Amino acid sequence: MNIDSQILKALRNAGEASVSGVELSQKLGLTRAAIWARVSDLRSLGYEIEAQPHSGYRLVSAPDLLHADDLLSQLPRSQKIGRDIRVFQETTSTSDIVEKLARDGVDEGVVVFAEAQTKGRGRLGRKWVSPAGKGLWFSILLRPRIRLQEATQLTIASCVALRRAIQAETELPATIKWPNDILVRGKKVAGILTELRAELDRVAYAMVGIGVDVNLNANDFSTELKKTATSLKLESAGPVPRAQLAVRVLSELDADYARVRDGEFERVADEWEKHCATIGLEVTIRMADRQVRGRAESLAEDGSLLVRTEHGHLESVIGGDVTVEK
Amino acid sequence: MNIDSQILKALRNAGEASVSGVELSQKLGLTRAAIWARVSDLRSLGYEIEAQPHSGYRLVSAPDLLHADDLLSQLPRSQKIGRDIRVFQETTSTSDIVEKLARDGVDEGVVVFAEAQTKGRGRLGRKWVSPAGKGLWFSILLRPRIRLQEATQLTIASCVALRRAIQAETELPATIKWPNDILVRGKKVAGILTELRAELDRVAYAMVGIGVDVNLNANDFSTELKKTATSLKLESAGPVPRAQLAVRVLSELDADYARVRDGEFERVADEWEKHCATIGLEVTIRMADRQVRGRAESLAEDGSLLVRTEHGHLESVIGGDVTVEK
Repeated sequence: MNIDSQILKALRNAGEASVSGVELSQKLGLTRAAIWARVSDLRSLGYEIEAQPHSGYRLVSAPDLLHADDLLSQLPRSQKIGRDIRVFQETTSTSDIVEKLARDGVDEGVVVFAEAQTKGRGRLGRKWVSPAGKGLWFSILLRPRIRLQEATQLTIASCVALRRAIQAETELPATIKWPNDILVRGKKVAGILTELRAELDRVAYAMVGIGVDVNLNANDFSTELKKTATSLKLESAGPVPRAQLAVRVLSELDADYARVRDGEFERVADEWEKHCATIGLEVTIRMADRQVRGRAESLAEDGSLLVRTEHGHLESVIGGDVTVEK
Repeated sequence: MNIDSQILKALRNAGEASVSGVELSQKLGLTRAAIWARVSDLRSLGYEIEAQPHSGYRLVSAPDLLHADDLLSQLPRSQKIGRDIRVFQETTSTSDIVEKLARDGVDEGVVVFAEAQTKGRGRLGRKWVSPAGKGLWFSILLRPRIRLQEATQLTIASCVALRRAIQAETELPATIKWPNDILVRGKKVAGILTELRAELDRVAYAMVGIGVDVNLNANDFSTELKKTATSLKLESAGPVPRAQLAVRVLSELDADYARVRDGEFERVADEWEKHCATIGLEVTIRMADRQVRGRAESLAEDGSLLVRTEHGHLESVIGGDVTVEK
């Protein structure tokens, strides 16, 4: 953890109390003047830090920006997802950056955020609108030791974690739409795109790309998109703090990725089924080469959806566009 | 098709007969002097081309090198695999080049050969020895419209095609070892590595990397490798013409890839089972996270191997290291 992370962590741990310059300077092995310089820099980023000659420093408020050091300071060190966080002002797609890192051999768990994406992507090459400063647009590098058929588990686990984080931070009723969306009151607020590089018998790496429509306004959505998508702000009383949500999302993702790694996918699947808006409904699922119509019954062990067709047999579907039949 | 391809094609089509300079010059829309210059260039590459003032040009022999134009001239234009051929003297791995092309949006069917690979790779990151001029080391870019679970079909189809081509060109008794090797008399002569980039519900692209130990000598193999691997030359009376084998392999690969695309994988699977050295044997298959022991029974529709375990149930295995139990 670097200096800024450590300062912010110390200030946050103190809560309403102040932390003396002497204490910080001893803890971090820096002169009091150096601490003062770092605090000034943080202030210029928008952190409101009160400084009193006798009592020391106190964090009054943090800006709603994504600051890697600050996000890091709020995550436990033991955490795999988010052990390394990088924030870009603008990228094509955060998954492009993660892929470069993956090819360079970087360890799993690195998270890349962008304030804006110029080529954010959804499933099947669809565009994902990612305006500056209004959402959480990020990607995670994973190197899971799973078989190719189990890769859906990564999307399922990410859905479960993302839903839990959104509901906890906003108190909105969030549900899951199979295979990769989070809904609030029937409209999409977040999506997950899992891309991977694999041989047939091992996944070399996976990039889990996540987009959360946090503080988008109604006019950020096209007329077409407005019918099916919304933002957390539009569904809440007001704007939702992005940095706080980001920390929560990373924590929850880490917890569910640990469950997948530890062979506890069944627990993830149970939680998924409990919160899934798709289970129990009559659906049509359109895939590249075919479509399946029937009742969404449950989740299979590999993360695919089990659909009872009109002919009565159970089909396992790994992905596709779901339409609910009324 | 470029000029060199067209000249070589015309000479090959004429067989033992000669093709007049006038005829070539009219056909290709070039001066006779220009044709002469191209022929001189081909000669400098090692093509033995006889030139008689009155009868014209005749191809006496072709060198055993991989010349993209020459390979192209021997493939039907309708062919998808090999519609674009690139030959490198040396690369890290031909799949690295193909991946760059894939990322640049190049159409499927491009084939990259290298005379030597410095970082040829086998399954699970293992090294593939690829000495200069002694083998066929190449990779193919495919963009199949298949689901992730069906990706094994690409390896299976490639195995079937490669086995057929090797047997046809060398008359050696070639068999298939599941999931990705070709054997002659129980020893490996060729291997296939399928790598892919995918979302959960579509394969963005696949790179099928193929290595054939054509003219390697006994001292090209390490003592360890010698126990399990051999070359076509070592198993035959003498060296095997690489270029001719390459053309045959590409033709057969194209035929089987067409079967996969046309939904005729079942026919591929039938041929596979007929020539598979693994079916019917007691095997142990070691995977990253587990192992399966039992009798290899057949190939499933998705290309996985169905193994009847000692407990009597059928397990589907997508990849792994196979050991035959005596």
